Amino acid sequence: MNKAPFLTREQAREITKNHPTPFYIYDERGIRENIRRLRKAFAWNEGFREYFAVKATPNPYLLRIFKEEGCFVDCSSLTELMLADTVGFHGDGIMFSSNDTPDEDYRLAAKLGATVNFDDLTHVLPYGELAPYGETVSCRFNPGGEFKMGNTIMNSPKDAKFGMPEEQLKEAFLLLKARGVRRFGIHAFLASNTTDERYYPKLASILFELAVRVSAETGVKIAFVNLSGGIGVPYRPEDTPADIEAIGNGVREAYERILVPAGMGDVAIYTELGRFMMAPYGALVSRVLHFKHTWKEYIGLDACAANLMRPAMYGAYHHITVLGKENELPAGVFDVTGGLCENNDKFAVDRPLPETEIGDFVYIHDTGAHGHSMGYNYNGKLRCAELLLCEDGSVRQIRRAETPADYFATLDLTPFQK
Amino acid sequence: MNKAPFLTREQAREITKNHPTPFYIYDERGIRENIRRLRKAFAWNEGFREYFAVKATPNPYLLRIFKEEGCFVDCSSLTELMLADTVGFHGDGIMFSSNDTPDEDYRLAAKLGATVNFDDLTHVLPYGELAPYGETVSCRFNPGGEFKMGNTIMNSPKDAKFGMPEEQLKEAFLLLKARGVRRFGIHAFLASNTTDERYYPKLASILFELAVRVSAETGVKIAFVNLSGGIGVPYRPEDTPADIEAIGNGVREAYERILVPAGMGDVAIYTELGRFMMAPYGALVSRVLHFKHTWKEYIGLDACAANLMRPAMYGAYHHITVLGKENELPAGVFDVTGGLCENNDKFAVDRPLPETEIGDFVYIHDTGAHGHSMGYNYNGKLRCAELLLCEDGSVRQIRRAETPADYFATLDLTPFQK
Repeated sequence: MNKAPFLTREQAREITKNHPTPFYIYDERGIRENIRRLRKAFAWNEGFREYFAVKATPNPYLLRIFKEEGCFVDCSSLTELMLADTVGFHGDGIMFSSNDTPDEDYRLAAKLGATVNFDDLTHVLPYGELAPYGETVSCRFNPGGEFKMGNTIMNSPKDAKFGMPEEQLKEAFLLLKARGVRRFGIHAFLASNTTDERYYPKLASILFELAVRVSAETGVKIAFVNLSGGIGVPYRPEDTPADIEAIGNGVREAYERILVPAGMGDVAIYTELGRFMMAPYGALVSRVLHFKHTWKEYIGLDACAANLMRPAMYGAYHHITVLGKENELPAGVFDVTGGLCENNDKFAVDRPLPETEIGDFVYIHDTGAHGHSMGYNYNGKLRCAELLLCEDGSVRQIRRAETPADYFATLDLTPFQK
Repeated sequence: MNKAPFLTREQAREITKNHPTPFYIYDERGIRENIRRLRKAFAWNEGFREYFAVKATPNPYLLRIFKEEGCFVDCSSLTELMLADTVGFHGDGIMFSSNDTPDEDYRLAAKLGATVNFDDLTHVLPYGELAPYGETVSCRFNPGGEFKMGNTIMNSPKDAKFGMPEEQLKEAFLLLKARGVRRFGIHAFLASNTTDERYYPKLASILFELAVRVSAETGVKIAFVNLSGGIGVPYRPEDTPADIEAIGNGVREAYERILVPAGMGDVAIYTELGRFMMAPYGALVSRVLHFKHTWKEYIGLDACAANLMRPAMYGAYHHITVLGKENELPAGVFDVTGGLCENNDKFAVDRPLPETEIGDFVYIHDTGAHGHSMGYNYNGKLRCAELLLCEDGSVRQIRRAETPADYFATLDLTPFQK
């Protein structure tokens, strides 16, 4: 797909009058339009809900946009629950999908009335000693083995730490039913970042069939099936975007084929999308600081892996546009680096790019999810600000950049004061 | 080598009366004894200096130990320079080895009188517009090609973003000489984390020969050769520790073979060791929170990759001891996990471990370098405290744990206040 930035060089110049690079910027219009596409694609399901995966981009200003657009939140930790509460989510507007969960996280989830999605059978009874079970509880399924689509192995659930096998899930449901839980959900995550439109329908078929079996064997009321995340985005120009309308239709087909005939046509479909909701609508904007002509050609930016870790951690591809030079031909191939003392601190390796100059704006695409939230402070580097490009064209800072004082906040420097 | 913890279960129990798990703990005695071994191994070189690589463990209380033991500091960023200054390092007690360096970092390095180690030729003249050159300046060398020891490829300097080829290094020296710099250093980093005692001597030979050529061709005074870091530690029980005495002797042999006959017997040897100085003398101590018996056997800890990222980022091995069960036989193999919604959040995969109970102390070895400093806040998880096990057996908190307030510090939550 055409990788067009949502920001022009002129806009970037204007922004840097008030906000130094690097910064993240998010496109409010893009976020809202995409949410509406998703909700339309699943509008056939009366109970459909998107629980935005907060971990992707845990910013309250963005969460508020999701709230205004009729979405809910998926939290995985104490601070994510606190953030959800701050923005005004509560009760079953919060899905708490965690694993290896500390007690205090469960206590806050219970206090907020969140729907708890148990990762494991062994959590079920200990939870009851911390807090009363809610009316509605979910359990996370792991089918084991390998997850294939056609002949392609998409993932190895047998090696995933998440979820429980069917027999344990049924046991969990019976334990919970005996303790007064009335409505049940089933959740699973079998692939990550796939734009293949067969994924959600295939996952849905597996979970719908499981729901029918579980309902028949345990007598519990299945209130929802949570397809979790996994829908990806086209990071590379040659990638095809996920066709959300086709995906919605595919899930509907499975729903009508499996659930409706089983008398379960009232089951709600939930999603916990993060990347699909945010990645394309966020960019890391940086400037060229240095060139280096040694054994390779290097372009050094004022951003580094402290701002965006995905290339260093996963070897992830992020498309790069030099703003204002969108239509220029490549002048060669370059390694685009940050300043960490880590050779994996490269945003791109052997990337064709046009001629650049010091000060040029480098727009790193599709960083709206798992970007800022995966930042770290290695080498004492500071995490940058987040900005929102509002629908009216104005720019609002929605998170300030870290300062050295933030970096030193956990240290007592008193003994060193001169 | 025998992977014995420097902490007993009883000590851990005592500590948790005041400090909840997880926490990092560092062994003051081990740190000091190791520094003394290093300094002894290089005592033959009058000018020898260890510049501790601050990035490994940027804690002022630890830096103070290095200072007391006659070491100096290698900084790579603005905040590391600030930290060095706070602890009382200044002038040529600070080596500033950075890359893709921002102007403000160079300005502070100059203000502190640090010895600047230029990563690239293209930095040399722009620096002069920011600050006066010091009396002593270093340049970083990159020989290109592949770095081999025997038939083993240790690294590919041709793909490393660091340093400059010989011709550029000579050009840099001439530019600097013409601008009044009187003393020069040469720096290179060709391998990471090797316990092979041939590495430093081989690197030293390369740099000594380069120093002789550069001195002859440019007429500059080579004051030091900086062997940088690269000496590793035995992460696995089957690994052999680096024999620092043999390494010192090997470097001496090269020194006497190459430098002394060239009339350069006054060149100082510098090192910038981080991992070797700290990794074995730090441990991440965590407790067992959960078990999980699904498609594999899992032990869930109260620590996660937010506390220690090396296994997730590099697939790094860290040995694990269940305190108090050092001599028990394995009860099976386990995946030892944290609570991130990330399947790479595993401290160990298929690791033989004894029978454990909830609450058992899990001691993760060799995390004293690139451990806490590489922590992040993904999933809203908080980074933990750092403690020092003092030589007298007392325990001192040298960094507090993050709180939710730290996590939210860069957000203005005013619009959300109820």
